[in-house]
Amino acid sequence: MPEQLTNGQYHTVYNLLSLVIAAQLFTSIYLLVVQPRVLPRYRQALVVAAIVCGIAAYHYFRIFDSFRGAFVTDAVGGQGTYTQAAGSAFNEGYRYVDWLLTVPLLLVELVVVLALAKKLQTSLLVRLIPASALMIALGYPGEISGDNLTRNVFGLLSTIPFLYILYVLFVELTRSLDRQPPAVRQTVSRLRILLFATWGVYPIAYLLPLLGLDGADAWVGKQAGYSIADILAKALYGLLIYRIARLKSFADDPAFAEVEGGHDQAVSHEHLDEGQPKAAKVGR
Amino acid sequence: MPEQLTNGQYHTVYNLLSLVIAAQLFTSIYLLVVQPRVLPRYRQALVVAAIVCGIAAYHYFRIFDSFRGAFVTDAVGGQGTYTQAAGSAFNEGYRYVDWLLTVPLLLVELVVVLALAKKLQTSLLVRLIPASALMIALGYPGEISGDNLTRNVFGLLSTIPFLYILYVLFVELTRSLDRQPPAVRQTVSRLRILLFATWGVYPIAYLLPLLGLDGADAWVGKQAGYSIADILAKALYGLLIYRIARLKSFADDPAFAEVEGGHDQAVSHEHLDEGQPKAAKVGR
Repeated sequence: MPEQLTNGQYHTVYNLLSLVIAAQLFTSIYLLVVQPRVLPRYRQALVVAAIVCGIAAYHYFRIFDSFRGAFVTDAVGGQGTYTQAAGSAFNEGYRYVDWLLTVPLLLVELVVVLALAKKLQTSLLVRLIPASALMIALGYPGEISGDNLTRNVFGLLSTIPFLYILYVLFVELTRSLDRQPPAVRQTVSRLRILLFATWGVYPIAYLLPLLGLDGADAWVGKQAGYSIADILAKALYGLLIYRIARLKSFADDPAFAEVEGGHDQAVSHEHLDEGQPKAAKVGR
Repeated sequence: MPEQLTNGQYHTVYNLLSLVIAAQLFTSIYLLVVQPRVLPRYRQALVVAAIVCGIAAYHYFRIFDSFRGAFVTDAVGGQGTYTQAAGSAFNEGYRYVDWLLTVPLLLVELVVVLALAKKLQTSLLVRLIPASALMIALGYPGEISGDNLTRNVFGLLSTIPFLYILYVLFVELTRSLDRQPPAVRQTVSRLRILLFATWGVYPIAYLLPLLGLDGADAWVGKQAGYSIADILAKALYGLLIYRIARLKSFADDPAFAEVEGGHDQAVSHEHLDEGQPKAAKVGR
């Protein structure tokens, strides 16, 4: 944590943290409210997605307050600098507690929404959940250490379960995607790329101190990186899970698609090649 | 932000901010509760409208607290002046964070409630959403800058996506309105005018400092303008979306209209020219 932040740096972090609270809180509410928009068999995935965003919103309330309490300012009317407050420090630990709970649940969302055979689902979960928890737990000792060697060692150890998760998602899961409707396959592919890209931000932010970037700018960059990655990896990810649940509901039950006004969508992806007249479904 | 506010100026802003909280919070609750009043295919639009008002309510709670913390007073018994508090400042950034999330969603509401063909809907959304996010993001650097040239440049850049959005809404969307029931066409027209009129308030408030109006009165005027525009552009707008969803539900399904007591309304717009006796339907 830097000793001093400029007015601009302070408010960049301040407003980003508030943005994350709003994004997580209202994505969580949204995912709970839209449950009737998917078939019952896909609601479990939506509930887990909503819980993930709710847990993140809680931790960002804490992070926001921790950040506000960690600095004092001589600012009047919006100009001035922000200095470390005595007897207080920004608690990075909230992030690790959040990830320890939410990262395994993010993998649960993905596996559950696909509604795979129970045996395959169990096999995926018993490997993904412990691996993801281990990944977070191994990162923490490095994060709180001021020593670069410790940071290196735990960073490296944490990468092993990360690579294992990627292997399971990109190799093993791919085999089971053949049975999914084409639009679902496409969205799942996007979801994995989103997961890979956003989870990649965390190790980069983690490694910033190793690159000698330890000033106020690097610290602000790390907070911004974690914040934006959390929005993408939880809120946007949850909305994509909802999209998969919608598409699968429409594919499973044409009558449901008709009532929901999604028949056009289901048709366009599922049966268009069968020559059904698409225009007739529009606007019903 | 002015150095001093009179008792009247302070309480004008204070009470307006509280009015916005009440308007957004209860419009949000209303829009969630009335979901069964429209057909399932239109509920998505209502949920998004409710989320928009909820996000606005959250940010106005923050804005309200920020405003209260930014001033100290020597007032006793309701008389006195309000002076900038040391170590605190009113955070205008909350408004931009709010708009960044809500403005794209306002356009989603409008497109989703029309239940257009999926292809057209996607084509509208992939242009409107990035344009609206860009419009807000480009306004922010000008808003926080004390420099008039910077304010001018970013204000001008922000106008480009704004004009593009108006083009899409008033030219491209018009073509697809022909298939909508007459009452829906009329409400959509009103909605676009509301959108145009209220979104026009934001650049005017933005430009006040350029006009040399930078005293306490201008600042109070800006806060009042933003607050009233936010009520019209989110809460009233959401209620008009609900009206469109109701009219379309009645037009789609006469049996639903009958149960909801809206058959008279649907008939008067849809089938009046077919010579059906209107009076017989009233009050059922």
